[in-house]
Amino acid sequence: MIDDHSLSERIIRLALEEDIGLGDLTTTSVVDPDSVGKASLVTRRELVLAGLPVFKRVFHCVSPDIVFKDAFGEGDVVPADKEVTLLSGPLAALLTAERTALNFLQRMSGIATLTRQFVEQIGPLKAKILDTRKTAPGHRLFDKYAVRIGGGVNHRFGLFDGVLIKDNHIAAAGSITRAVEQAKKGVPHTIRIEVEVEDMEGAKEALAAGADIILLDNMHPSRMAEVVRMINGKIKVEASGNMTIDRIKEVAQTNVDFISVGALTHSASAADFSLEVVPE
Amino acid sequence: MIDDHSLSERIIRLALEEDIGLGDLTTTSVVDPDSVGKASLVTRRELVLAGLPVFKRVFHCVSPDIVFKDAFGEGDVVPADKEVTLLSGPLAALLTAERTALNFLQRMSGIATLTRQFVEQIGPLKAKILDTRKTAPGHRLFDKYAVRIGGGVNHRFGLFDGVLIKDNHIAAAGSITRAVEQAKKGVPHTIRIEVEVEDMEGAKEALAAGADIILLDNMHPSRMAEVVRMINGKIKVEASGNMTIDRIKEVAQTNVDFISVGALTHSASAADFSLEVVPE
Amino acid sequence: MIDDHSLSERIIRLALEEDIGLGDLTTTSVVDPDSVGKASLVTRRELVLAGLPVFKRVFHCVSPDIVFKDAFGEGDVVPADKEVTLLSGPLAALLTAERTALNFLQRMSGIATLTRQFVEQIGPLKAKILDTRKTAPGHRLFDKYAVRIGGGVNHRFGLFDGVLIKDNHIAAAGSITRAVEQAKKGVPHTIRIEVEVEDMEGAKEALAAGADIILLDNMHPSRMAEVVRMINGKIKVEASGNMTIDRIKEVAQTNVDFISVGALTHSASAADFSLEVVPE
Amino acid sequence: MIDDHSLSERIIRLALEEDIGLGDLTTTSVVDPDSVGKASLVTRRELVLAGLPVFKRVFHCVSPDIVFKDAFGEGDVVPADKEVTLLSGPLAALLTAERTALNFLQRMSGIATLTRQFVEQIGPLKAKILDTRKTAPGHRLFDKYAVRIGGGVNHRFGLFDGVLIKDNHIAAAGSITRAVEQAKKGVPHTIRIEVEVEDMEGAKEALAAGADIILLDNMHPSRMAEVVRMINGKIKVEASGNMTIDRIKEVAQTNVDFISVGALTHSASAADFSLEVVPE
Amino acid sequence: MIDDHSLSERIIRLALEEDIGLGDLTTTSVVDPDSVGKASLVTRRELVLAGLPVFKRVFHCVSPDIVFKDAFGEGDVVPADKEVTLLSGPLAALLTAERTALNFLQRMSGIATLTRQFVEQIGPLKAKILDTRKTAPGHRLFDKYAVRIGGGVNHRFGLFDGVLIKDNHIAAAGSITRAVEQAKKGVPHTIRIEVEVEDMEGAKEALAAGADIILLDNMHPSRMAEVVRMINGKIKVEASGNMTIDRIKEVAQTNVDFISVGALTHSASAADFSLEVVPE
Amino acid sequence: MIDDHSLSERIIRLALEEDIGLGDLTTTSVVDPDSVGKASLVTRRELVLAGLPVFKRVFHCVSPDIVFKDAFGEGDVVPADKEVTLLSGPLAALLTAERTALNFLQRMSGIATLTRQFVEQIGPLKAKILDTRKTAPGHRLFDKYAVRIGGGVNHRFGLFDGVLIKDNHIAAAGSITRAVEQAKKGVPHTIRIEVEVEDMEGAKEALAAGADIILLDNMHPSRMAEVVRMINGKIKVEASGNMTIDRIKEVAQTNVDFISVGALTHSASAADFSLEVVPE
Repeated sequence: MIDDHSLSERIIRLALEEDIGLGDLTTTSVVDPDSVGKASLVTRRELVLAGLPVFKRVFHCVSPDIVFKDAFGEGDVVPADKEVTLLSGPLAALLTAERTALNFLQRMSGIATLTRQFVEQIGPLKAKILDTRKTAPGHRLFDKYAVRIGGGVNHRFGLFDGVLIKDNHIAAAGSITRAVEQAKKGVPHTIRIEVEVEDMEGAKEALAAGADIILLDNMHPSRMAEVVRMINGKIKVEASGNMTIDRIKEVAQTNVDFISVGALTHSASAADFSLEVVPE
Repeated sequence: MIDDHSLSERIIRLALEEDIGLGDLTTTSVVDPDSVGKASLVTRRELVLAGLPVFKRVFHCVSPDIVFKDAFGEGDVVPADKEVTLLSGPLAALLTAERTALNFLQRMSGIATLTRQFVEQIGPLKAKILDTRKTAPGHRLFDKYAVRIGGGVNHRFGLFDGVLIKDNHIAAAGSITRAVEQAKKGVPHTIRIEVEVEDMEGAKEALAAGADIILLDNMHPSRMAEVVRMINGKIKVEASGNMTIDRIKEVAQTNVDFISVGALTHSASAADFSLEVVPE
Repeated sequence: MIDDHSLSERIIRLALEEDIGLGDLTTTSVVDPDSVGKASLVTRRELVLAGLPVFKRVFHCVSPDIVFKDAFGEGDVVPADKEVTLLSGPLAALLTAERTALNFLQRMSGIATLTRQFVEQIGPLKAKILDTRKTAPGHRLFDKYAVRIGGGVNHRFGLFDGVLIKDNHIAAAGSITRAVEQAKKGVPHTIRIEVEVEDMEGAKEALAAGADIILLDNMHPSRMAEVVRMINGKIKVEASGNMTIDRIKEVAQTNVDFISVGALTHSASAADFSLEVVPE
Repeated sequence: MIDDHSLSERIIRLALEEDIGLGDLTTTSVVDPDSVGKASLVTRRELVLAGLPVFKRVFHCVSPDIVFKDAFGEGDVVPADKEVTLLSGPLAALLTAERTALNFLQRMSGIATLTRQFVEQIGPLKAKILDTRKTAPGHRLFDKYAVRIGGGVNHRFGLFDGVLIKDNHIAAAGSITRAVEQAKKGVPHTIRIEVEVEDMEGAKEALAAGADIILLDNMHPSRMAEVVRMINGKIKVEASGNMTIDRIKEVAQTNVDFISVGALTHSASAADFSLEVVPE
Repeated sequence: MIDDHSLSERIIRLALEEDIGLGDLTTTSVVDPDSVGKASLVTRRELVLAGLPVFKRVFHCVSPDIVFKDAFGEGDVVPADKEVTLLSGPLAALLTAERTALNFLQRMSGIATLTRQFVEQIGPLKAKILDTRKTAPGHRLFDKYAVRIGGGVNHRFGLFDGVLIKDNHIAAAGSITRAVEQAKKGVPHTIRIEVEVEDMEGAKEALAAGADIILLDNMHPSRMAEVVRMINGKIKVEASGNMTIDRIKEVAQTNVDFISVGALTHSASAADFSLEVVPE
Repeated sequence: MIDDHSLSERIIRLALEEDIGLGDLTTTSVVDPDSVGKASLVTRRELVLAGLPVFKRVFHCVSPDIVFKDAFGEGDVVPADKEVTLLSGPLAALLTAERTALNFLQRMSGIATLTRQFVEQIGPLKAKILDTRKTAPGHRLFDKYAVRIGGGVNHRFGLFDGVLIKDNHIAAAGSITRAVEQAKKGVPHTIRIEVEVEDMEGAKEALAAGADIILLDNMHPSRMAEVVRMINGKIKVEASGNMTIDRIKEVAQTNVDFISVGALTHSASAADFSLEVVPE
């Protein structure tokens, strides 16, 4: 589910380090180190559950002896006031790991919940909701995973697994045509070339230059629709630019293949959970 | 300004690694490695500027040859559509570092901007706006720094520099009195003991046990006011629990010393910047 | 017992790396890799046992298959020539890890033993023996843990979990009053403010400025006693400055609350153990 | 002078991290970040100076802008109450790095000073004073460097750059002869084989087996002298076992080539320095 | 030129660490630390120069004070017995870094030289010579860079920037059609789908399923030619399977677009350089 | 068998990271995460098996649930087309780890196979085949281990566990005599001093200076034989300089003790294995 052990482990450990530092003063001084307990993870509002494996991993970093009894799974729409999972194990570890584990889970479920809203807004239209690289630094993998859980589709993970030629690259190369040409020469043949354009003329030049995908940035839906008709299925078309829940349906009706939404990962509110710990 | 080189460097490098991986395919193939350029960081909406040193550090990790000419400084309220700083340097580095640098800046300025709104809501009342440990994992230092920039005050940084005895700790210890006693024995004398209580009775017990601060969690403002009167300045009083911009003033009017607001760091929207790169 | 996995693991691994490097030439060439054996950890002089968990962790880093049968526990006063624990496991691992494990144990038990001597010297007087930040670099957690095992009490762990305003800070701020004021504004409310003073006047200013603790540095016991009387229990008083086993009782008789002793961690002699390995 | 950047950097950074953590609360809140200052490193007793480059490196990790004006150099015997070096630079950095830098310097100069005492005790006798692997964990390089500065000679650095067959290895191999044989086969030809023996018989067997060096462990000086006569210069002879300043000369008079002294690194007291910081 | 600072730095530092460990015994004991010198990097046979920046980086890790005066540049075909670059700087650093720097350069230039031979063998035929993932572990970036310098073209860098469905994946999915379908759903739209097939039937199915590239593995050239005719330019065709310098031209004559050659990186001989150091 | 966990783990993790990055796109999208399978490791040509533990470690890093059923062991000469080991476990992990695991195994078995050829060429002559420091960067431990498996003997591992005074060191010191003298003073007594010489005169000077070993570099076999006679067993003699399989016997007949062969590790071809994965 979470593929890269290295980067995901590093952000988890960084989070535990910054929170625990040289030790949890409160728990160490107040809680008997031999106590065991249970804790119930409860939703306070309806949400799309995402990040449970990360939540568990955080606890396991603090104590491998914590066990979980799940009532819901990744991707479930969980109503308010439901127990998601029941934790049992060393009480001190439950208390020490709690905040860090919740911080991950609240962020990830918040992203999944927001993504779901966008996806539902589009309904049966063909456009896929894409994420962007506007993720919290260090959280790329987790943020993008949460988007998938919420029903979205991932754009490239970073600068290394896709080419996206933007206005600045075009200016640097001299023209769309020249930029596409250079990209085709310079990258492995397993990589597609996407070009960001701002008008019909750009779209035509990109198509002629052999772009594999075009990205319509900050264009009015009526203009997008014209470009989609011109492209006529020859290559894929993506739309972007301050996509909000209010505008998304209108954009989808232009028949673009993809709509990328930065807000999914840069402005989702935390989902609301609480962890109620009960000593035994 | 940013104190801990180690943790802050690690999250910056993690962010660059996850984005760049084995290389920026687009820039490497399209942009002449010897080109230099300028780029203008521009606001799209009014915001409180926070994170400029981090923004710059990201660029310097990619190329130490980038220089900055600032028009605004940390903490400034910058109107929409203003140039914040002008970057000059190797064009490829400007393009490769852009997204990661913006991701930090947008998050931090978003937090500072939201904090400012809370602070202004309270006006001349004595309560200070505190942050919490509900920060993005790995971003504790940056998130809390942004709160300070926005006019807030930092609560403890983590579990290691403060004692906060919550309901679960009290349950584990048996009583408030016993928990405070144990904490006093177990932690360095440089650390204060804060106790979370839910009612007047708890507040009285905490005070009697020798707590240094009490935290009123999820209590109605009228009940808070009663506790504040009972405490009568003997120790400090903090309020917490789903504090929103709408409720904050009413809470401040209870005369508490501190109000801690999780939303500052877990639900701030990204501040809106763009970086316009211009090849020379 | 040993709270921070990250820092403690790092010093343990550093120690193993610097000793083992690319391999234990002697053991690898001389000892059959399939041999198992036993080893007896024996005291050569009476000592306070501290560091057994670290001792075991070192062996487990080299081989998780080593098991221990303990005759004594942390904090025990162990007479000379007693077996502390009996190790069993792969012979090669026992030999390779031996020196590094002993180096930790000898240092930590040396500190605990010395701390005990100071504590006993004070007897029923109220002063607590504190450690300082004069620890072996990289050993802060272990050195301070050993002090606790020996019956001492920990001062702040580092620069991040307490404020201690010394002469240099006072000079920089302009006055004690100004320094205390700034510290109160600048640090989380969970942190107490301690101020180092050198005479009665300084003590009075610190008290008036709202310091939470004062530290009497290098003051004659008779002058300390005067300050203690002036403070009269309003805040805590700590004494410091070349505290030796000979002077400690006289200082304690001034009625200070704490006496901090650098020698506990910067000048304790190694406790004397041997490890006798027996092939089976 | 300090050869291995990797290990030495790691212990320095570990030391700074454990002390500074998320920030120096006192300095950050009390000292103006733009202040500069001077600080004088002064001896309080006569000592052999060792570790000045490490002392400086610690400061430079906190601020590269600190400069030093040295009055003494590594290895100098510095009388009490002399200025060793004068530091100038950002005041906050001087204060933050002070304790960690001193902790290294006091340890290293303490070792060098003690080593010098042993070396002087021996005078013109041929024996060289060797260190052992009984160093503070993580400080192997620095401890051994300090021994050299004090006039001692380094034994192997770790398990990887020398063979030392001890009683446990001999027991595992079956006999001295067999152990030497196996070592000769198993290690690079650039490595000498040293064998620890406890009596004349062992020494004879080691010599016959082709050992390159023998180590006389815990043997009475008169018996050592007999072995030295028997060996008659054919191979080198080292003596070890609780060597104290009182016994060292008698051991040296046996004509052994080397005497290894664990106390140099496991029980040296900290050398006494102070750093007096002066704001400008 | 060398894009990823993180991975490339790590292999360089690993290489220096494993070679230098706790110090260069020979140089430290024999060479005056203040000596400076020059060293001439000379070819012993004709070769394609690749890896000079890595070679220099190794030296700079040991001493930033070394400077280089280049007579040839990356990609140059350098005849035997020519000076490639002249190094000047601290003599000890030149000697300590020499072997590690040469080990990188000899490997990289060996790969570039072998690649050049394959490329020349093909001459004006359209096929591009591709590398594979059969690189020395930890050297992926450097090995693939050397292939580019030698005139080859890079296949995907790893498992993350391309899809290559092999026989095992097809078996797991049930059919070529099903595997292609799933890949299209599961990966970012910036990534192409390549399918390995072993016969005409597989090629037809892959084409029909919407594969973007097909890979003909271990097929006889005459059969390859048939597939190429069937594909008729609709998608790209790659050939692989024990490609040797003797067979490569025949394969190229089938008109495939790419030929991937594992031997470029798993079996290239070291290019022959010497470094002649001259003290001044 | 593989002694140093730290360096060997680091190169293994580096190799997995560079290959897998943020995830194996093909396997993740095509293979059911719950599938299990078997895979057969098969030789394609006769080879000396070396590196099976590393091969297994790579798989275990990806999934600890993979098990192995070995038909051959380290050092076995395995004929072509034999199954070496049968792997069982999660199918996705088998596919993801395959290439990296094979890259290690093919390199190490290639080195062992080549070493065996050199050893066999010498037959009953007394010379031992030594490796050099001309290893793939980051692979020192694995390359040298493979040489041992192939019947060779290891020279020093790095610069830290042996002294080898080469022409450049001699030039720096002024003379062979002076260089040997300084090395004797500067290195632990557990280390032997080896001196590289180019003619009879050098050999005589090295012997007189007290060198422990001499290295005859690039000398004609007839001249080597003269030196060997002159040395007459007083110290060990090593030969080096472009040793090929054709020349090796002639060199061995000079009666030198060691012959070091750089090609073993810098120019061995990859041994030929395949891994045939079968879903269940």
